Amino acid sequence: MTDLQTMGKKAAAVKPFLQRLSAGEKNKALMHGAEMLVRRAAEILSANERDMETAQRNGMSAGMQDRLRLTEERIGAMAEGLRQVAELPDCIGEVMEELERPNGLKIKKVRVPMGVIGIIYEARPNVTADAFGLCFKTGNAVILKGGSDALYSNAAVVKVLREALEEQSVPPDVLQLIEDTDRQVTVAFMKLKEYVDLLIPRGSAGLIRSVVENSTIPVIETGTGNCHVYVDKDADLEMAAEIVYNAKTQRIGVCNACESLVVHSKVREAFLPRLAEALAPKNVELRGDEGTREILTDCTPAVEEDFGKEYLDYILSIKTVDSLDEAVSHINRYNTKHSECIVTENAQAAEKFLNEVDAACVYWNASTRFTDGFEFGFGAEIGISTQKLHARGPMGLRELTSYKYLIAGNGQVRA
Amino acid sequence: MTDLQTMGKKAAAVKPFLQRLSAGEKNKALMHGAEMLVRRAAEILSANERDMETAQRNGMSAGMQDRLRLTEERIGAMAEGLRQVAELPDCIGEVMEELERPNGLKIKKVRVPMGVIGIIYEARPNVTADAFGLCFKTGNAVILKGGSDALYSNAAVVKVLREALEEQSVPPDVLQLIEDTDRQVTVAFMKLKEYVDLLIPRGSAGLIRSVVENSTIPVIETGTGNCHVYVDKDADLEMAAEIVYNAKTQRIGVCNACESLVVHSKVREAFLPRLAEALAPKNVELRGDEGTREILTDCTPAVEEDFGKEYLDYILSIKTVDSLDEAVSHINRYNTKHSECIVTENAQAAEKFLNEVDAACVYWNASTRFTDGFEFGFGAEIGISTQKLHARGPMGLRELTSYKYLIAGNGQVRA
Repeated sequence: MTDLQTMGKKAAAVKPFLQRLSAGEKNKALMHGAEMLVRRAAEILSANERDMETAQRNGMSAGMQDRLRLTEERIGAMAEGLRQVAELPDCIGEVMEELERPNGLKIKKVRVPMGVIGIIYEARPNVTADAFGLCFKTGNAVILKGGSDALYSNAAVVKVLREALEEQSVPPDVLQLIEDTDRQVTVAFMKLKEYVDLLIPRGSAGLIRSVVENSTIPVIETGTGNCHVYVDKDADLEMAAEIVYNAKTQRIGVCNACESLVVHSKVREAFLPRLAEALAPKNVELRGDEGTREILTDCTPAVEEDFGKEYLDYILSIKTVDSLDEAVSHINRYNTKHSECIVTENAQAAEKFLNEVDAACVYWNASTRFTDGFEFGFGAEIGISTQKLHARGPMGLRELTSYKYLIAGNGQVRA
Repeated sequence: MTDLQTMGKKAAAVKPFLQRLSAGEKNKALMHGAEMLVRRAAEILSANERDMETAQRNGMSAGMQDRLRLTEERIGAMAEGLRQVAELPDCIGEVMEELERPNGLKIKKVRVPMGVIGIIYEARPNVTADAFGLCFKTGNAVILKGGSDALYSNAAVVKVLREALEEQSVPPDVLQLIEDTDRQVTVAFMKLKEYVDLLIPRGSAGLIRSVVENSTIPVIETGTGNCHVYVDKDADLEMAAEIVYNAKTQRIGVCNACESLVVHSKVREAFLPRLAEALAPKNVELRGDEGTREILTDCTPAVEEDFGKEYLDYILSIKTVDSLDEAVSHINRYNTKHSECIVTENAQAAEKFLNEVDAACVYWNASTRFTDGFEFGFGAEIGISTQKLHARGPMGLRELTSYKYLIAGNGQVRA
């Protein structure tokens, strides 16, 4: 059984080293890591092949297989992610605020690393490199626990990166991987509060629930996305069809994909047949409420649970509403506070929707697929937070930092 | 038994109302609340008297009694806290960042309320008014669970404030108090994740541990303060004695009080007798290591656990060290990441201490007692965070908010 205490101690032990590393040293190590990922891609792809064979044998769904699969292109993207992170400014040490109190105390709020970050994730092996890059750039040690489905892929990526770090005289324990697939080890990891400052789960709703219920470490919930596109009565219907097509089908296995469509009843007749036609080449199964089925007569009936479901598949639920208010309250009831969109030419309706829908990212006339650290210009992302504490939406570098107050006086005491 | 589901629903139900309230309306209600606290002080004091009698009968410690006691002056300070919060700018709706992406998407990061905040606290009834003021000003509903020791005091404060809110046409359910003293109710409250967005415990290490272990709601740990003053070899010893005297004795029952002294061995002979003399009128019990007892021969021997203890009493542990490095590592080993101080005239030593000591607030030549929302100019405080996620150190208004991204496009889809 994995000795988590020892892993925790090792991570804690590299903190002073990480704190002393200059931006230049960190960037050099990141660039070297990127180079090594590309140079040793064959080794990583062959490990991934082993995971893919198991997945196919176990009948993994198409969406999940898409998440698990690595290609040269995806390894290139992982390396490019590390390079982009290296090119981003180093935010550690940044003076976020400075104030002087009437008693002469000078208070500085300074950005510091979080310390040790734990990440528990499922079948996407690209997370391994992304997570390392962002944590390392922000002076954090990271302990990863990937899914058993991606065990060989993750181990290969970590092996390459740890060797790259050693070649740059960086202690490889800044990046550790728990290779044990025993669930008890994962639960024990969630309670390694003595050493781990922040735990980020990335994956299915079940994984996230388990982390929230078991962890004694502060958690940022990520990932579950039951995202809606609302087509308003004042929508440009061609634009609406393009946005829904993109948000639903451009990549199905991801949290920012559209899972549910909400349509104003005034445009259902004009819009729904057009949308059905647009989605037909992708064989998207539509599950509609009564208002939908009056127009799309051969559509599957939607049951209550369809509206709360993250399909991660070629399925779309459809709800018709009679007002913007009804759309907002339907979305606030069923969403996971991830990404929501209104398509409308009416600025007032858009403003109301943006203000009243409770989600990390609320879009006006754009695909929900843009909720992503790269697309937001963060250089990469560690996940999409769906909670309100600390970070919301795409988490990049700054979201992996904390701060401290440094206060200088000349003998002040409190009266 | 308290119906927590109903309380949660009531809190959630007032969220849209809170969102619509203007800054002016919020401030008017806060000012009225302040006025009513003062006007009905006798009623609150008489409830507090009832709590104090029970406390004395149960042999509560001097430190804890000091926390529990209300006076006209302390009620005045509670009211003044509300007034100060009313006078602070409203941060809700603030555009924190604005960026435009190359594809034309316009992204705005906007400050929003957290939603519903739960606060579990122990014997300090002033928390009741402070917590309400900060939560209300930031558009949050709050559910309070005070300690059984302060039950009547808290109920009186909440009654006055709820009536004040109603007089201002604000639904009183923006402020709710769990009046049940059953521990099972408290544990159930920690799992009210469906309705509560953030849970803040304020109180003993035991309370905080219980919340961390049981809560499924995101938590901010607050309060436990094992704070050190380090007297460097280059310290101004008169200043050092004043700072230690203030940090130890100005108010003993609070988390930013000094609990442990670290002294460079080069100055122990000159400093320790002077400090003992300064502390003598307050009857502070000193518990020293060997290096201390060589100088203060009648000092109680300190055992290992003294160094990890938050006394909240007239007791001070003393550790002698041979170097700044030893001081830093002693403090990082035993502290609770709250407030630490170095007294030195040596700027280089101060810089090293400020950078390397891991705590929310690190002081150079000033008392640790300044770690406080009022002293930092926040207008009030909801607690002192000792974790690194979301907020660290004194938490004021901004620390009770979240943000969302509003993204405007003109039909962008992801390629």
